[in-house]
Parts: sequence; structure tokens; C-alpha cells
Amino acid sequence: METPLLEQLIQAFCCLPGIGAKSAKRMAFYLLEQDRSGGKQLALILDQAINEIGQCQNCRILTEDKLCQLCANPKRDNAQLCIVQTPADVLAIENATQFEGHYFVLGGHISPLDGMGPEDIGLDILEKRMLEGQLNEIILATNPTIEGQATAHYIHEKAKKYQIKVSRIAFGVPLGGELEFVDGGTLSHAFTDRHYYP
Amino acid sequence: METPLLEQLIQAFCCLPGIGAKSAKRMAFYLLEQDRSGGKQLALILDQAINEIGQCQNCRILTEDKLCQLCANPKRDNAQLCIVQTPADVLAIENATQFEGHYFVLGGHISPLDGMGPEDIGLDILEKRMLEGQLNEIILATNPTIEGQATAHYIHEKAKKYQIKVSRIAFGVPLGGELEFVDGGTLSHAFTDRHYYP
Repeated sequence: METPLLEQLIQAFCCLPGIGAKSAKRMAFYLLEQDRSGGKQLALILDQAINEIGQCQNCRILTEDKLCQLCANPKRDNAQLCIVQTPADVLAIENATQFEGHYFVLGGHISPLDGMGPEDIGLDILEKRMLEGQLNEIILATNPTIEGQATAHYIHEKAKKYQIKVSRIAFGVPLGGELEFVDGGTLSHAFTDRHYYP
Repeated sequence: METPLLEQLIQAFCCLPGIGAKSAKRMAFYLLEQDRSGGKQLALILDQAINEIGQCQNCRILTEDKLCQLCANPKRDNAQLCIVQTPADVLAIENATQFEGHYFVLGGHISPLDGMGPEDIGLDILEKRMLEGQLNEIILATNPTIEGQATAHYIHEKAKKYQIKVSRIAFGVPLGGELEFVDGGTLSHAFTDRHYYP
């Protein structure tokens, strides 16, 4: 039988993404039966992380310091700013590309239906940085969803006012993908956005 | 970029069953970005559960009390004892059957290769209960694996010494299953173990 504390623990595990009642039960039993030290460590680190990890003042990436490693690095280019929706996007771009500029993490997208306005995704802070005049280029790397596109469009309009160059990352058929299996929207976009040989 | 604390958190999530590096990263980001109160709650409850939840003195089920709800219930039959491998098995049997007796949780199986002897799965405690003379029937509900069968056999041999009736739950084709799709081992067992109409 489940005791009250065990039920609370199973319930608490359900807050994790992709974890339902069955997996939560499995996790609770596993930690209590087979890995108590791992569970203890997880509880400690999770509590510490939630207390200490906040947002970088400059780019809103997750960090336990005031400035993240990227913003604190004097070698990176102050003139280029890449706008992404989540901290995980920063990791992905850092791992895959040679980009040497800075990032700005929105932490979401403009979505009036969910009550997410420009201030909720830090666009007021972003506008202040546009105003400072150091920015040369803004690279929009929000997701190719309707909300991501709308957010990109909004930022583009703002940047125009300050005469900052704006670019959008390319969308199309993924490398190694076979045309036959690519979805229609992507293929249609890849067609419209085709490049002419010089 | 991952900060040291963020890396520790991702590492800590990897101790969960079925969670690899990618899912762990997703969990860490999700909690820090979108559900800090849920994460805080998980850390608190997990720590409390690991400190407070132990084994029932009587049946080794997980509980925060000395005796579990089942052992503390005077209405249950002291003469029947069902032997299972994990606390989750107790839940499954309680939910599915009308069994009114008590349980004994081994917390594993005899496995000399992994250094798991009879004492490690509480068989010394079980033998003491056999000696007390209250037991009328032992129902072996260990898994139908080689180790589960060996453990059942070992307990059967012990119980013989004390003239206690021993039964093993039935194995065979699951209800609602189609013979065509049942694995060969199960089908062969179901055939050998067939019942004759009276």
C-alpha cells in the first residue's frame, strides 16, 4: 500500500516533463529501494540549483553567477547578437556553429492568448541594448513556428528603427534528409527560398 | 553554456531509471525555466522521503511507520503469507486480487553471482516467522524468471521443514491474449500445466 509520504513523492515526480503516474511510481520505488544516495544527491542539488541558478543580467541565460560565461568572455564579439527562445537553443548553437557573438534568451515567444507580451520575454531589455548603439547585427534564431515567426517579425520591426542589420537563420530541407520523407511545409519553404547560382 | 551547478543537476537526474543525458538535460531546463515551485517541492519531498521512509519491521514493505498499514490491520489473516520480490508487486496484488493475508517483500532474489545470499533478501527473518508457527500457507509470487524460480524453490525447501503448505501462483497465457502472439516459453508452460476437467 502507498503511504501518504510515498504518494506525495510520486505526485512530486509527475511535475517532470514527460513523466506520468506510472513512470513517477517507478522512479520513487527505484530510488527508495535501490539508489538512496543518488536520490539524496538529486534532492540536494535540485534544491541548491533552484535557489542559486538565475538569469544572466545581460542575456537571460541560466547561470548561478551575475554574468554568464559567454557574457563575461571579453573575446566574444559585442556587435553580433543572436536571439533565441530557450537556453537549450544557446547550447545547441554553441555546439554546432562557429558563432562568436553574444546571445539573448527570450524564454518564450509573444503570445497574446497566453498573456505573454513583449515585456514578458525581455524585449524591453533588448530594446535598451539596441539603443546603446553597440549592436551591428541581430541574428533571429527563434523557432520556425507561427509564434516564433511572429516574435522574429516583432523584433525585426524594432531593430529597423535603430538601423540595425537583421538576419534570420535559414530554414529548409535538413542535411542528410531525403526529399521524399520531408514534410510538405518544409519542402514548400525550401522551394520558395531557393538560391540562384551566381 | 552549462555552468558547474547546472552540470551537477543534469548528472543528478541521470540516477533516475530510464533517464539518460538528453532527458536529464530537458528535466533540468524545464524545472529551472518553467516550474521552479514544482522542482522545489520535488527536492523537499524527495529528501524527506529518503530520510523517513524505511522498511516495515514485519514484511519489509516501504513505509514511514514502524509497521505498514497492512501489518497493522488486525482484520487481515495472519495464517497466509504471500512472498513477493518488490513493494510494487504488493501494490499490484492488492489492486487486482481479494487476498486478505499478509505479505513479505524480499527486495530482490537469491543471486550468488551478484553476492545476494538468503540473508540479503531477508530469508533469515522469514524463517523466524515460519518457526513461530502461526503460518498456515505460503504463497510464492516471485517473478517467473530463473532467479525468481530459484528463490521460490529455496523458500519451498525451507517451508517443508516446518510443515507449512506452499503454493505458487499460476503462470500461463494471459487473459485476453491471443495464442498466436504469446511467446513460446509461456505457451509451452501453459500446455504442460494444463488442467483436466473433473
